[in-house]
Amino acid sequence: MPTNTFLEEEIYSQPKVLSSLLEWELERVEGITGEIPEFNYVVIAARGSSDHAATYAQYVWSSLAGFPVALATPSLYTLYQTPPRLDGALVVGVSQSGQSPDIVAVLEEGRRQGRPTLAITNAPDSPLANTADWVIPIHAGPERSVAATKTYTAQLLVMALLGALWSGSRTHLEEVKQIPAAVARALEISDEVSRRAERYRFMEQCVVIGRGFNYATAFELALKLKELTYVMATAYSSADFRHGPIATVHQGLPVIMIMPSGRAFGDVLELARDLHSYGAELLVISDSKDAKGLANVYCPLPEGVPEWLSPIVSILPGQLLSLHLAQVKGLDPDSPRGLTKVTRTR
Amino acid sequence: MPTNTFLEEEIYSQPKVLSSLLEWELERVEGITGEIPEFNYVVIAARGSSDHAATYAQYVWSSLAGFPVALATPSLYTLYQTPPRLDGALVVGVSQSGQSPDIVAVLEEGRRQGRPTLAITNAPDSPLANTADWVIPIHAGPERSVAATKTYTAQLLVMALLGALWSGSRTHLEEVKQIPAAVARALEISDEVSRRAERYRFMEQCVVIGRGFNYATAFELALKLKELTYVMATAYSSADFRHGPIATVHQGLPVIMIMPSGRAFGDVLELARDLHSYGAELLVISDSKDAKGLANVYCPLPEGVPEWLSPIVSILPGQLLSLHLAQVKGLDPDSPRGLTKVTRTR
Repeated sequence: MPTNTFLEEEIYSQPKVLSSLLEWELERVEGITGEIPEFNYVVIAARGSSDHAATYAQYVWSSLAGFPVALATPSLYTLYQTPPRLDGALVVGVSQSGQSPDIVAVLEEGRRQGRPTLAITNAPDSPLANTADWVIPIHAGPERSVAATKTYTAQLLVMALLGALWSGSRTHLEEVKQIPAAVARALEISDEVSRRAERYRFMEQCVVIGRGFNYATAFELALKLKELTYVMATAYSSADFRHGPIATVHQGLPVIMIMPSGRAFGDVLELARDLHSYGAELLVISDSKDAKGLANVYCPLPEGVPEWLSPIVSILPGQLLSLHLAQVKGLDPDSPRGLTKVTRTR
Repeated sequence: MPTNTFLEEEIYSQPKVLSSLLEWELERVEGITGEIPEFNYVVIAARGSSDHAATYAQYVWSSLAGFPVALATPSLYTLYQTPPRLDGALVVGVSQSGQSPDIVAVLEEGRRQGRPTLAITNAPDSPLANTADWVIPIHAGPERSVAATKTYTAQLLVMALLGALWSGSRTHLEEVKQIPAAVARALEISDEVSRRAERYRFMEQCVVIGRGFNYATAFELALKLKELTYVMATAYSSADFRHGPIATVHQGLPVIMIMPSGRAFGDVLELARDLHSYGAELLVISDSKDAKGLANVYCPLPEGVPEWLSPIVSILPGQLLSLHLAQVKGLDPDSPRGLTKVTRTR
C-alpha cells in the first residue's frame, strides 16, 4: 500500500512492530516478572494514550493475575508534594517519550520509598527509564506522527504479555503470540471504515462506548478523533453512560460502539439497542453479526481473538477512521494544531 | 428565594443539609475511623456523581492521610467474575440509592475476602448499606430531582471529614466545620452565573477544566450540563488536556475553567492564558482576580476556603448554571429525558 503520511505508514507498520517486540522482549520480560519482589497492588502513572494503555492494564492484570491497579494522581506528587504511602505497591510509569516530569516524579517517589519501579517506554535512555529499576522498551522505532498509534498497541502488547506471564498460563502466552497476525488481518478487513470516512465530514461531536477490556479502546478512539479530526468525541463505559450522560442522546447523534464478542458484549449490545430506538446513528466495531442490524456503518473485526486481547485489534478501525477523516477534512494527519510530539506537564 | 423546581430547592438546601450532616455524623464517623482495622490503600466503587465524589476522595485521602486510592473496575467483579485479590485494601462503596448491583458486588467481594468494607449512602437500609461493615448515611433527605446536587456535596463532605479525621489534624477538622457557611456564601454570590445562563442558549458542546482537588469538580460540572441541558460537555485536567485534546480548541470554543486559588491554580491559569490566546471563550469560576481578565464570563467563589475543601463550593456555580440553562432552553430540570433516579447497572 503506497503511503504519503507518517501516520498511515505507522498504522500499517503495527503487525511488524508487534512481532518484533515479542521477538526481542518476551524472554527479557519473563525474566523481569521473576525478579520483581512481591507486591499487593500496582500504581500506574501515565498521560494521554499511555494512560489508556494503563487503563487496559487495570483490566488485564486484575483479571489474569489478580492484581488491583490504581491509576496515579500525579499532581499529588508534583503540585501538592503530598505523595501517598506506597507500602505494598509496584510503581509503573508508561510514556512513549519518557520525558513528562509528572510521570517521572511518581517513579522517583516509588524509589524513595523503596518500592519496585518499572518503566514501559519507547525511549530506553529517557529520564523515566533512568529512574526505574526495570525498563521494558517497546521497540516501536521513532514515531513521527504526533498521534500515537504503533506505540499505543505496543504498550498494550506489553501489558498483555505481563498479564500472561504473571498468570502463569501457557494458553494466555500462546494467545498473545497470535496477536501480530490478528492485527495484520484486522488492517486488511478495515477498508470499510476507510471508505466510509466521508460520511463523517460534518460531524461535530460524537460519543464512543466500550466496556471492560475495551473501556480503554473507547478513550483511545475518542482521543484519536479529537487529535486528528478535532471532533469533540467523548468516551464512556456502557454502564457509566446510563448514569447520566445518556440524557444527551438525540435523533442522529453519532455513537461509536466498540463491541467485540465476549463477556462485555451483552451489556454493550443492550445499550446499542436502546440508542438505536432513540434514533442515534451507530458505527459498530465488532466481530459479531448480532450487532450488524443496528449499525448505520458496520466495521468488522477479525474473528477468533480472545476478548482480553481484543483491544489491540479493536482500536485499528478508529486509527484508520481518524486518518481518513482528517484527510477528507483537509487536515494534516501528522501535525495536529496545538500539539507537539513530546508533552511535558507538571 | 421562591422556588418552583425540586432541583432549585435542593441546590439551595445544601447549607442546611451539610450542617445537619456534621451535627449528626461527626462523632459517629470519628468512632468509625477508630474501629476500621489497618489498611494500606483504598478501593472505591461508585458510578455517576458518586464516582466524582470518589475521585475527590483520591486526592483528599491521599493528600491528608497518605492513603493511595484506587477506583474499582466493577465489570471485573460482575461481567468477568475475576475480582482482584484485595489484600491490604479498605473497600468503599459510594451510592446515593445504594441500589446499583455492580457497586454492591464490589463490597460483597471485599467481605468475602475478609477486608473491611464501608458504605457512604443516602439510603441506610439499602443493599449497599446492608453489605458493609460500616455505614455513613449522608442524611440528605429524599432527592426528588434526577440530577444529584445535595447528595453530591454531602458525599464530598463525608470524604473531607474522613480525610480530616485520618489526618489527626485539629486544624483540618475546624476547616471542615466552616464549610456549610461557605456554601451559603457561595450560593449568595453566584447570581452572576444564573443571570448569564442565556448566553449559552445555543452552545452545543464545551470543555470543562479542573485540576488536583478540582479534577472531580470538572467531571461533576460536565455531568450536570449533560444531564440537565444536553450539552456535550467533556471534562479534563489541565495536564491531560495538553496531552492531545487541546487540538480541538478553536475560535469561540466554550471552556469552563474551575480554578480556585491554591497549588493547582498556576497550572490552570497557564492553560487559561493559552486558551485565551487561541480565541477560546472562557467561563472562569474562581476566587482570584488574576484570572478575571481572561474571562468572557467570571463567576466569583467566596474567599478564604482552603483548596482541599474548595470542591464543595466550586461545584455550586455549575449546578446553578445547569439549572438556569435548562430553564432557558425550556427543559424540565427535574426529569431529564432517558434518566430515572435509580440506575441499576451490572
